[in-house]
Amino acid sequence: MKIVDNISEMRLLRQQITVPVGFVPTMGYLHEGHISLVKHAKTENSLLVVSIFVNPTQFGPTEDFKQYPRDTQRDFSLLDRENVDIVFMPSDEEMYPGDFTTWVEVNQITDRLEGASRPTHFKGVTTVVAKLFNIIQPARAYFGQKDAQQLLVIKKMVADLNMNLEIITVPTMREPDGLAMSSRNIYLNPKEHQAALVLYQSLSLAHKLWRQGERNAEIIRQEMEYLIKKQPLAEINYISIADNNSLEELDTVIPQTLVSLAVKIGRTRLIDNILLK
Amino acid sequence: MKIVDNISEMRLLRQQITVPVGFVPTMGYLHEGHISLVKHAKTENSLLVVSIFVNPTQFGPTEDFKQYPRDTQRDFSLLDRENVDIVFMPSDEEMYPGDFTTWVEVNQITDRLEGASRPTHFKGVTTVVAKLFNIIQPARAYFGQKDAQQLLVIKKMVADLNMNLEIITVPTMREPDGLAMSSRNIYLNPKEHQAALVLYQSLSLAHKLWRQGERNAEIIRQEMEYLIKKQPLAEINYISIADNNSLEELDTVIPQTLVSLAVKIGRTRLIDNILLK
Repeated sequence: MKIVDNISEMRLLRQQITVPVGFVPTMGYLHEGHISLVKHAKTENSLLVVSIFVNPTQFGPTEDFKQYPRDTQRDFSLLDRENVDIVFMPSDEEMYPGDFTTWVEVNQITDRLEGASRPTHFKGVTTVVAKLFNIIQPARAYFGQKDAQQLLVIKKMVADLNMNLEIITVPTMREPDGLAMSSRNIYLNPKEHQAALVLYQSLSLAHKLWRQGERNAEIIRQEMEYLIKKQPLAEINYISIADNNSLEELDTVIPQTLVSLAVKIGRTRLIDNILLK
Repeated sequence: MKIVDNISEMRLLRQQITVPVGFVPTMGYLHEGHISLVKHAKTENSLLVVSIFVNPTQFGPTEDFKQYPRDTQRDFSLLDRENVDIVFMPSDEEMYPGDFTTWVEVNQITDRLEGASRPTHFKGVTTVVAKLFNIIQPARAYFGQKDAQQLLVIKKMVADLNMNLEIITVPTMREPDGLAMSSRNIYLNPKEHQAALVLYQSLSLAHKLWRQGERNAEIIRQEMEYLIKKQPLAEINYISIADNNSLEELDTVIPQTLVSLAVKIGRTRLIDNILLK
């Protein structure tokens, strides 16, 4: 496994690659969700690049950029075990030099859900992903369904800007107790971890209501809200029942509706979602 | 010469090309300035793509998008004569479908000069150029020095977003009388054409003063302004004496200073520039 820590070396290396490249962008501190992305990518591409870059521009000024968990050596050994070919790990300084002024921005769907709570988040995501795509030039890039809105935003960017690659969605990985894998789960103490199960429980409740024939989005939302509010450590940021392309809130639930939520457990903000089908 | 009028055909064609591609983006209604770009590109690339696309998003709401001159048959015959390999001519509808919401934006240097007069112009330029680069995937793209700020903005976008190509600057082509070639020169009647010579005359005056040892930017600007104001058909939009990277106005002129101006001649807004050296 080759570890590349600067853009020019990555470019040079990329020039010599003639096979289609698979790409998994990460912010490191890898968990089974990331490994699932890597495994998917490995089966579909003869050469696989994983990036580790905690992207400063997607964190808001009051968010956890500095304390975001990092463990590069552990990440390397996990990726090596999966036979990743190249780990790309550029520096903040090289990715965002002092005179950096260019942004890629998807409008409209970024105003909702995560974008409403984190107004500059997706601008940071799309910009860094565009940069990484230009450096790595993958044929396929892999993103988790866990960050459902991010996935839609990146697909929109790729379509609108005619980027020459395929975006592959990989299902959310969960702990045995249902908690969606996230690097931020490390912030939870055992009591909070237990409380955090309410996210998936409320999504499962939505799914159950849907399967039982409930089509009224407001009723499903209220049931979810009622369940979460019974958990004293949980504070709802949003519960959304929306179209899985436009992210417009729905009154009547249809197949492929995206049910998503953001809930603060103590000081940790968690997100999760399911598609109704 | 192959004429391709849709993105998917262009993509398919591009996939089959294994040599480095040269690319000249144009808005059509080609003049000797464009042909000079094509000739430069032809010497440096074994395969050359020219795009013709009057990009609606770089025109302001009160600007000349609808009346912008078009003559596709003439353009084809000019490009065929230069042995261009592929002409890419997508439709507005395919480039900007109804749900298009993604923009590439360079900040700061786009606030000045043309950007100050045309606040949404460069956002349209960078977005369409990013799209075209993604579709054509050139090794080199050619732009005229005539649009000096556009050139800087595109170079900045390419650097900031790590786009994988080289931007080549081609000198401004002029009529024998000094008027910079522009598709918009068609708007000038003979009297206006004569009046429009004052742009290059004032730039030549700046160059002369510089060669004579004048280093005070304000004096050079005033001399240019004085000359232009003698021309009753001319109305100055701006005269700028600026750093050729940051576009910050200079008090003291140094080598490679960009002297640029925008002047309305009757109803036609013209731009021109020189680099002092």
